[in-house]
Amino acid sequence: MPRLTIHRLPMAHPGDVSALASLIGAGLPADSIRAVIGKTEGNGGLNDFTRGYFTQSLLHLLAERTGEAPAALGARIPCVLSGGTEGVLSPHYVVFAVDRASGGEAGLAIGTAFGPPVAPGDVGNGAQIARVAAAVRAAMADAGIADPAGVALVQVKSPAGGPGLLLRSVAGGAMGAALALGDVPAAEATGDALLERGDLFSARVSASAGVEVERDEVVVLGTAPGWAPGLRLGVRAMADALDLAAVQGAFRDAGLDVAPDVPPAQRPRLRAVIAKGEPDRTHRIRGQRHTMLGDIDIDAQRHLRGALGAVIAAVAGDGRVFVSGGAAHQGPPGGGLVAVIAAEEA
Amino acid sequence: MPRLTIHRLPMAHPGDVSALASLIGAGLPADSIRAVIGKTEGNGGLNDFTRGYFTQSLLHLLAERTGEAPAALGARIPCVLSGGTEGVLSPHYVVFAVDRASGGEAGLAIGTAFGPPVAPGDVGNGAQIARVAAAVRAAMADAGIADPAGVALVQVKSPAGGPGLLLRSVAGGAMGAALALGDVPAAEATGDALLERGDLFSARVSASAGVEVERDEVVVLGTAPGWAPGLRLGVRAMADALDLAAVQGAFRDAGLDVAPDVPPAQRPRLRAVIAKGEPDRTHRIRGQRHTMLGDIDIDAQRHLRGALGAVIAAVAGDGRVFVSGGAAHQGPPGGGLVAVIAAEEA
Amino acid sequence: MPRLTIHRLPMAHPGDVSALASLIGAGLPADSIRAVIGKTEGNGGLNDFTRGYFTQSLLHLLAERTGEAPAALGARIPCVLSGGTEGVLSPHYVVFAVDRASGGEAGLAIGTAFGPPVAPGDVGNGAQIARVAAAVRAAMADAGIADPAGVALVQVKSPAGGPGLLLRSVAGGAMGAALALGDVPAAEATGDALLERGDLFSARVSASAGVEVERDEVVVLGTAPGWAPGLRLGVRAMADALDLAAVQGAFRDAGLDVAPDVPPAQRPRLRAVIAKGEPDRTHRIRGQRHTMLGDIDIDAQRHLRGALGAVIAAVAGDGRVFVSGGAAHQGPPGGGLVAVIAAEEA
Amino acid sequence: MPRLTIHRLPMAHPGDVSALASLIGAGLPADSIRAVIGKTEGNGGLNDFTRGYFTQSLLHLLAERTGEAPAALGARIPCVLSGGTEGVLSPHYVVFAVDRASGGEAGLAIGTAFGPPVAPGDVGNGAQIARVAAAVRAAMADAGIADPAGVALVQVKSPAGGPGLLLRSVAGGAMGAALALGDVPAAEATGDALLERGDLFSARVSASAGVEVERDEVVVLGTAPGWAPGLRLGVRAMADALDLAAVQGAFRDAGLDVAPDVPPAQRPRLRAVIAKGEPDRTHRIRGQRHTMLGDIDIDAQRHLRGALGAVIAAVAGDGRVFVSGGAAHQGPPGGGLVAVIAAEEA
Repeated sequence: MPRLTIHRLPMAHPGDVSALASLIGAGLPADSIRAVIGKTEGNGGLNDFTRGYFTQSLLHLLAERTGEAPAALGARIPCVLSGGTEGVLSPHYVVFAVDRASGGEAGLAIGTAFGPPVAPGDVGNGAQIARVAAAVRAAMADAGIADPAGVALVQVKSPAGGPGLLLRSVAGGAMGAALALGDVPAAEATGDALLERGDLFSARVSASAGVEVERDEVVVLGTAPGWAPGLRLGVRAMADALDLAAVQGAFRDAGLDVAPDVPPAQRPRLRAVIAKGEPDRTHRIRGQRHTMLGDIDIDAQRHLRGALGAVIAAVAGDGRVFVSGGAAHQGPPGGGLVAVIAAEEA
Repeated sequence: MPRLTIHRLPMAHPGDVSALASLIGAGLPADSIRAVIGKTEGNGGLNDFTRGYFTQSLLHLLAERTGEAPAALGARIPCVLSGGTEGVLSPHYVVFAVDRASGGEAGLAIGTAFGPPVAPGDVGNGAQIARVAAAVRAAMADAGIADPAGVALVQVKSPAGGPGLLLRSVAGGAMGAALALGDVPAAEATGDALLERGDLFSARVSASAGVEVERDEVVVLGTAPGWAPGLRLGVRAMADALDLAAVQGAFRDAGLDVAPDVPPAQRPRLRAVIAKGEPDRTHRIRGQRHTMLGDIDIDAQRHLRGALGAVIAAVAGDGRVFVSGGAAHQGPPGGGLVAVIAAEEA
Repeated sequence: MPRLTIHRLPMAHPGDVSALASLIGAGLPADSIRAVIGKTEGNGGLNDFTRGYFTQSLLHLLAERTGEAPAALGARIPCVLSGGTEGVLSPHYVVFAVDRASGGEAGLAIGTAFGPPVAPGDVGNGAQIARVAAAVRAAMADAGIADPAGVALVQVKSPAGGPGLLLRSVAGGAMGAALALGDVPAAEATGDALLERGDLFSARVSASAGVEVERDEVVVLGTAPGWAPGLRLGVRAMADALDLAAVQGAFRDAGLDVAPDVPPAQRPRLRAVIAKGEPDRTHRIRGQRHTMLGDIDIDAQRHLRGALGAVIAAVAGDGRVFVSGGAAHQGPPGGGLVAVIAAEEA
Repeated sequence: MPRLTIHRLPMAHPGDVSALASLIGAGLPADSIRAVIGKTEGNGGLNDFTRGYFTQSLLHLLAERTGEAPAALGARIPCVLSGGTEGVLSPHYVVFAVDRASGGEAGLAIGTAFGPPVAPGDVGNGAQIARVAAAVRAAMADAGIADPAGVALVQVKSPAGGPGLLLRSVAGGAMGAALALGDVPAAEATGDALLERGDLFSARVSASAGVEVERDEVVVLGTAPGWAPGLRLGVRAMADALDLAAVQGAFRDAGLDVAPDVPPAQRPRLRAVIAKGEPDRTHRIRGQRHTMLGDIDIDAQRHLRGALGAVIAAVAGDGRVFVSGGAAHQGPPGGGLVAVIAAEEA
């Protein structure tokens, strides 16, 4: 009977996993770690190597503490790193661990799955959608979630697929998960719909892609029988990058007050904040022109993460927010989603 | 007996003043324009020429419509342009005009003043502080505001003073205005205090500096007898870039609801939103490390504007927010201030 | 009987045309100016407004000195500004003027032409190719050059056509000029060939595009009867961005020594250095991987200009080199061309 | 009796050491490796983590192949990584290995040394100068070079020392090495002279600094008795970033032809090209204004590396050039130096 515990840890630089080393030293079993989701301070683009650096450092640490080879660990623990801590965002990582000795009636469960190796360029198409949907179903089974309605959030990471394909791969991963959850009809979840059909989306899928990823990786969070209670996950679609009411709503759904931000006494209960968003492709937000998409000095996704991240961090109370750009099929076009996990007690 | 009117206008690019041309064509007397404050889509640094381009375009338009020479107009109309519309921010400009034919018991008044020509490099010192303080007093007199307590907001723009001096010049302008308002004691408002004494600040001063500026320019807004009622200005200090409660407070002080943002029906009443902020020099915000100051790909002020601007825009309801970095002595260190002007009726 | 004179002038910032004002003050007739080609210190992308700022400043100056309206001047004087003075490059502009009172047997001639207004988006297709080809023929006629073999260099600037179309517009302009010169067969100079058929190019065409441009603008330089002698133009294709031998060849063709650079005593004879190049799309140069195309912090064209500009400047002896990226159909793929104009006497 | 061998290897990304793995697999003894100097594709600034990533990857590989711990290897093998492959530069690394079984009358020798651990911030002062000078003397002894005149090139890497100190640390490392070589008088090699006394320099010292470095690391190359012949090292001061004649001179001194570049048949003989340079602090190169120092979009050192690297690569024949900015006291102000190592046979 398992209990999910979630640890939000700081990093001094992308090669720094000393906070996890300390946590393991203080008693967290290294082999209880099931997934890691984090933000590193790179640029978030194809030439962002901070994700690979962190992952290599993490796997070497876990290899040292578990005796397993780094490659074997990397093949069973999804490590979803997103580069880019623009503005007020703070580099950090969230460790999901499972204590098998405890449990309860029903609680927040985690399940993971890896897809098969992906041939170069084989992303952004129907094959990726099918692959990811299958991996999501496998992760649900791993968590013990039978009904897609029980899934609170799916995190997907897919290979970038090469220059020019990164956003397509993000879209394909999102569509695959949305298909598995039943949030998009199977007949419409096609390769042709990717990046085109903004009306097809799931507001409980966070997808990304990276050059250092070789297989689709999936983490599913949701309610399942037998898991210990104590964690709540709230998730809301955001209509646009300024949707402050939706942000507050996600925090409230996780059991926190917002007045207008989370009160300092409740902030230690926060376990993870995860968001997706994207620069509105119409070049306008609520009728006013934005300049994110035409700036050749700063990548549009960097603009977006800095802005959206700040809106969420202002409600959360600090900058430990996982914000990732490229939100196709993850919430409405020009918007996205925000998920909050909080403990019922600090 | 005057009435202040404020017009918030879009620009399609930094040389586009067609919205003002239309407004003049529709009846706004060109010679009633007293000041312009705007955001252009440059990078906001020493090599941002969008401010000069907009100003040149503006002055040519006004010259054509008033018959005055561009240089003469530039010497009497403060044009405070701030580069950088990162994230959700939208390029726009706010035109302050005065209709001499109306008036009332007391209302929001405007006064302007220009200092003498500044020798290259003569910024960031006691001389600048004295020059700016004198200009602020002149602008108060111009507005008819006798008591510094009646001043709601001062906007200062000073010459950049050359490479490496830009932030010092911003600090000097802020300190000069703070001195004139009595928000900082005269004995402490010295050149040595600039950028060092974070405890010395005014939360009703917005200062900036630019390479294209040759003299200190000052705009004072506040309550004065004889001016028409109908506009309200709220201003709040922000403790840090995430101070959402302060942002909401400024909007409330201007007579607007926040739930959590300004309701759509009230948004047309917004006339101007002006904010200052800066990347926390401790490299931390609420205990969490930020990376703004160590990123050589994106200037720290661009990071800050994108983040702070988004927090404010999320409350305002759109991205027409004047956010400017370099907030030394304008609100507390690591924080800044936010000012909101709204009409009582749309 | 005309004489072409060429003046290479510095600018302190993109709004600075004081050097030309001085030249006019010293006797250059303002109405003798036929074309201006220059480099401004913007980023060279869609959000580079330094080109528009310089052009506005230039036209206001010429309007003041000639009595013509700025718009009328802009409609007859091609102003080809390229943003981006990366690395050792220096902001400058080259003014081409014609003295009608002198002349000779045959010499370097200039001709200019403007195409019709271009509908938004109507670039990068067969229509643009035909429009530009016609404009090139008109400019040849204006110069008095009957045979395309007499053309030494064509400079084209076309409207950017909107987001995503900039490089297509450059390609269309280049193809149109190549067609007019007979360097590409008419049957192959089609819209489909743009950016696809790297084997179709002219090594005597320099093309660019800009958001501020509304019509195709063409400048032709070549040998024509009746023009005064004294200027020589050398042009060479560059096989890649490291083609130092080709660079030296162009300078030698213009009558200068290279040992390995132009000797200091000959440098005052330089009148203009114009080059086009592009990051090799194979991601390799001479078998070694380059990283220009995958860097989201620095635009690939900025990388290219900085590198190619330095190679040419090292031969020229200083950084007053017009280097523009986007070299499709202007020299071989991955390479480009370099043109040098020098006077026979200083 | 030793022989120095030098291997120039490609990397597909900053974590890729597969080329070295192959070389070891093909027979290069892993324990023969004495130093590694390389360029990674980061931004070269404080937030460039590609250097640490590569170093971690390298040390893990060598640990696996030698059985020594990564930390122990890092404490005896200088790994001098410089971030930034702007423009035509190509990510690569140069491995210096020593075969103890061979030797000769006299040849190119290598010696290395590490200084003691450096306290945070203890760079850019007299202490660093003394520390580095001692380390250079130790490295000379290690190589068997008794007379400083026999030293051809010193490579130094020091800790960055924290925000704002990076360029000071580079200067301190350079001055320390210059002192040890006798190129700067002991009485003048003081902390006060750093970054101030441009007249104090050595044209055979390449220094850098990095956030990931904890101790001063030194590599000395020069002629010593008993080492095998077959490698030649040429080094020249560059008067400025356009000093093409100096670049050609260094290649000639290494025994290669330049016509104007190294002929293709000789290029396989190249073993390493190492250069230092900096943006001229006067804002001018040969009288023309450059814009590197005022661009907030691209770091000045990135501009410089792109430009200087291209000039050198154009002579070398490809982009495998180690170019590092921050050249204080390494060649004349505004200039720098270039060193070339070539084998007498391919």
